[in-house]
Amino acid sequence: MPVPPIAWTQTYAVRILDQRLLPGERVERDLETAHAAADAIRTLAVRGAPLIGIAAAMGLVAGLRAHRHDAREAFLDAQARLTRLLEAARPTAVNLRWALERQRRATLATPGEGEALWQYLRAEASAILAEDALTCRRIGEAGLALVPDGARVLTHCNAGALATAGIGTALAPVYAAHEAGRRVHVFVDETRPLLQGSRLTAWELTERGVPCTVIVDGAAGSLLARRRVDVVLVGADRIVANGDFANKIGTYSLAVLAAHHDVPFYCAAPWSTIDTSMPDGAGIPIEARAPSELGCWEGRACVPAAAEIENPAFDVTPARYVAAYVTERGLLRPPFTS
Amino acid sequence: MPVPPIAWTQTYAVRILDQRLLPGERVERDLETAHAAADAIRTLAVRGAPLIGIAAAMGLVAGLRAHRHDAREAFLDAQARLTRLLEAARPTAVNLRWALERQRRATLATPGEGEALWQYLRAEASAILAEDALTCRRIGEAGLALVPDGARVLTHCNAGALATAGIGTALAPVYAAHEAGRRVHVFVDETRPLLQGSRLTAWELTERGVPCTVIVDGAAGSLLARRRVDVVLVGADRIVANGDFANKIGTYSLAVLAAHHDVPFYCAAPWSTIDTSMPDGAGIPIEARAPSELGCWEGRACVPAAAEIENPAFDVTPARYVAAYVTERGLLRPPFTS
Repeated sequence: MPVPPIAWTQTYAVRILDQRLLPGERVERDLETAHAAADAIRTLAVRGAPLIGIAAAMGLVAGLRAHRHDAREAFLDAQARLTRLLEAARPTAVNLRWALERQRRATLATPGEGEALWQYLRAEASAILAEDALTCRRIGEAGLALVPDGARVLTHCNAGALATAGIGTALAPVYAAHEAGRRVHVFVDETRPLLQGSRLTAWELTERGVPCTVIVDGAAGSLLARRRVDVVLVGADRIVANGDFANKIGTYSLAVLAAHHDVPFYCAAPWSTIDTSMPDGAGIPIEARAPSELGCWEGRACVPAAAEIENPAFDVTPARYVAAYVTERGLLRPPFTS
Repeated sequence: MPVPPIAWTQTYAVRILDQRLLPGERVERDLETAHAAADAIRTLAVRGAPLIGIAAAMGLVAGLRAHRHDAREAFLDAQARLTRLLEAARPTAVNLRWALERQRRATLATPGEGEALWQYLRAEASAILAEDALTCRRIGEAGLALVPDGARVLTHCNAGALATAGIGTALAPVYAAHEAGRRVHVFVDETRPLLQGSRLTAWELTERGVPCTVIVDGAAGSLLARRRVDVVLVGADRIVANGDFANKIGTYSLAVLAAHHDVPFYCAAPWSTIDTSMPDGAGIPIEARAPSELGCWEGRACVPAAAEIENPAFDVTPARYVAAYVTERGLLRPPFTS
């Protein structure tokens, strides 16, 4: 059995698999406070839109252990403070906000003092964790027809088991097809700058026996041109009402290339990734990450100091490039309303 | 003055700047034999289509120093043998073959024994070196109108001074515009797997005072979508009769993205890059390089052993994506005939 990317410890700290060290080392870390959880999210020790929602909900519970004996108002104040801290860890994925908002509503609807509220939050976080596994399974079923026997799938970044508490989002239909005995081959964009494709997606696919081929991101175009890809499946960090969505930088390029070569392009995500409050993709905040993520290669500086570096973590793909959205509610088309 | 990427030593060995170590270290290496030259070309210590043509011509001269006292036939035999060795170093760039064919014709047209033939070859290699600098200058003039004041240029890989004996091919119009006092900004694809964009292009641009911004290859699409690029300029390793051309992997993706966003896309190269013997791009041999070029990140393995890796060094861009070819003969359109 693969190591789960997230779990409770016996004392309700958050145990994560540190994804920065994969595939070379499997190191688990226990996050004892909300600060530690926010830090793990910020530094990508735990990453993937669904998983960071789960990590935030669980990290809030870990952090509020210190307030279990507080009176109601003091507990709610602490919850609000730690919620702001966790929400600020990363700006683009809406799952973070979604999970914390679900926690906020849970305590508002629950009577009692700190201990009762904490118990409720702990149960709610466990429910978010358990539901995500089920959601992934349903995404896999919804997308199963997209991955027929012999299918050659192209994906970007990691929207697999390591990004969720289940079998992933973009990779869920792949795993479902594999379990159904279909032959599937996955082409994996290595996904610069942090190589979540080669480090994480290729790792979890091979661990589960799904054959895959890693390519540099720039090789996707010629692969599509040579008719070596049947379908493109990617995840999402935020889908807005009209269907525009943010995902790892390079996703938009893939969408244009897929359209240009008449290869269907699907976005797979749980409903919790959908932000119905935003009409279109223009308003999605795009996280700018540290230039140093590009600046180093095999331990040596590879960008001269006088050069600028732009390192947006995401780009926005307009809805018109997306054949359908693969969700736990089935294959959907926008607009999305709550 | 920047260190030249290639030069003669006093004894007619080939002195190169080892481009694998840039930008961190400036190490010059003297290639004393044709084997050493072929090895430097194969391992990318010296790279760039025009420059490897020059390096092959000069490496042949270095290698034939040992045959200066041979009789004519023995010298020609040695030349043929070392030519085959150098030609085999890399398959895609036609400049390698072009330079060695020019050397072959030079000796066939020259009377005399080894010493006379060697002197002629040495002069011919020096001419190839000197002509390339002039060719780059003319490419810069031919492309000057493509880079008006305030232009924002996107380029891929390195087709600059480090790829030639002059001011480059794709970067020649940029340098010409900069010298003419125009403000130019260059967006530089880092160019995985070997980062010739961030390591080489950003380095030589900043050394010459041209402002630039390094991005991951996957960020080019959203940059184009946000109208932040006025023109795309790339080099070529081989252009065939109908205008199809091979260039660093990722070039084709850029061409499709530029077309999709109505941004003009130009290919800049010396005439020696044109292979009129090949009707279209389908026949261009594409070098498959070692999987290990993708498999390592900050000294750690980053692709699991069970995953396949495909590492084509080049892709082929059909002529229909190219607004014009920027050559020393001006802005051209195919077909190209000798």
